[in-house]
Amino acid sequence: MRIAVVAPSCPLKREAAERVQGIVAGRGDCELLVHPQCFLSEGHFAGPDKARLAALREVMADETIDAVWFARGGYGSNRIAEAALSDMPAAALAKQYMGYSDAGFLLAGLHKAGGRATWGPMPQDAVRQNGDAAINRALDWLVKADRSSLEPDLRPPAMAFNLTVLNNLLGTSLEPDFAGVELLIEDVSEHLYRIDRTMFHLTASANIRRVSRIRLGRIADVPENDPEFGSDEVAIVEDWCHRSGIPYGGRADIGHDAENRVVPFRI
Amino acid sequence: MRIAVVAPSCPLKREAAERVQGIVAGRGDCELLVHPQCFLSEGHFAGPDKARLAALREVMADETIDAVWFARGGYGSNRIAEAALSDMPAAALAKQYMGYSDAGFLLAGLHKAGGRATWGPMPQDAVRQNGDAAINRALDWLVKADRSSLEPDLRPPAMAFNLTVLNNLLGTSLEPDFAGVELLIEDVSEHLYRIDRTMFHLTASANIRRVSRIRLGRIADVPENDPEFGSDEVAIVEDWCHRSGIPYGGRADIGHDAENRVVPFRI
Repeated sequence: MRIAVVAPSCPLKREAAERVQGIVAGRGDCELLVHPQCFLSEGHFAGPDKARLAALREVMADETIDAVWFARGGYGSNRIAEAALSDMPAAALAKQYMGYSDAGFLLAGLHKAGGRATWGPMPQDAVRQNGDAAINRALDWLVKADRSSLEPDLRPPAMAFNLTVLNNLLGTSLEPDFAGVELLIEDVSEHLYRIDRTMFHLTASANIRRVSRIRLGRIADVPENDPEFGSDEVAIVEDWCHRSGIPYGGRADIGHDAENRVVPFRI
Repeated sequence: MRIAVVAPSCPLKREAAERVQGIVAGRGDCELLVHPQCFLSEGHFAGPDKARLAALREVMADETIDAVWFARGGYGSNRIAEAALSDMPAAALAKQYMGYSDAGFLLAGLHKAGGRATWGPMPQDAVRQNGDAAINRALDWLVKADRSSLEPDLRPPAMAFNLTVLNNLLGTSLEPDFAGVELLIEDVSEHLYRIDRTMFHLTASANIRRVSRIRLGRIADVPENDPEFGSDEVAIVEDWCHRSGIPYGGRADIGHDAENRVVPFRI
């Protein structure tokens, strides 16, 4: 099993790459090819659009690569997603892709194009507390399709997205068909009024209204509201589900943390 | 000329209401009816949804009111907009509505429903430095249709929106027809990576791609990016206009400040 790491958004920390290579060496069941593009830096991004696109296209087309693992989130994969997904060779459709957060732009587009997109931990998570568990959970799925890595209550077909990323891909060429899909959402560092506004936008979508249910992952590091918003994330999501006729399915075990579980869009 | 003030989003400061009443008394050309709902407070909002909706519906239906002036932005008008705009009486369509920022949800829906929506300063702006000028600019337009209040380079039909608010009303029942419209955008307190992401989403819309051009108002109080984003707001907007085939028309004199000019959606 050969796994390539590229960074379509922000640069990967060298320390994280080294920790992941250490874990991989200890496991002995896969080979990790960290593309040098992961360490490029230009402003906010892991190198210019052209370099991030070229690295991604390169590993997508490589027949010797079994899986592409997005190095980390941040912001920027949307800037190259449409170009990355045009004229995909057969090798690109055969392999699995894993990531979360900003990588959701690519996961959405890959799934729409017929590819194998999976929500799950990323190499940068290695530097979180208990990051080793996150890395092994991701590798257990990629290498062995170990079902203990999965979010425990999935009713496939399922998809998982960062709420703000999903909000920003609705109406774009990356938007997949949500009919019958169990939709898991999570977010980080967003005020509750923003979560409320995003849920308004999300649940107004006719496509989103076709999901089988919405389940709520963790809403982490919420900045303080002055005055207090007056509601919490569960009440907010339940309210907009109720208003739009979408079944609310309770909490989900995903989030911007080391406990984040795996959600394959195709299973 | 009788102007009613209601607060569909956040509460109006008493100090601002008093300053505006002072300005109105000095002018002697209009009467200002500040609805008591403006001073309600429940969590983030100027009272519960029901109270904000009732006050808005009340002044919309009142035949003795010539204009409805939204007290301030913040967040929350989207929560009542669809209900406010259903079954509108003739009196509601006859009068003018003015506001900006979060009030854009209502302006969009009012315009779509055939109403007279206008971007312009709000009563809460009275407490800004040079706030009196903003208040008089708004009143000069509402009372006398004084063209010196207008954004100086408008090519009607024109609309103006806070970029983040516009992003969150695309795909909802509030989204108006943008064909042939000059679109002015501005934003405040958003990281440049968010402006970039929002422009990606905005310019992917087929409806938005029918605008005659996009002009960029002020992007104010941008939080620091670490590392620096690597681009500025003009380059970002030009980039996404270029990618999506939308003409970029240069800067516009609107923003979250006392210099904010008036943009009537129908003229």
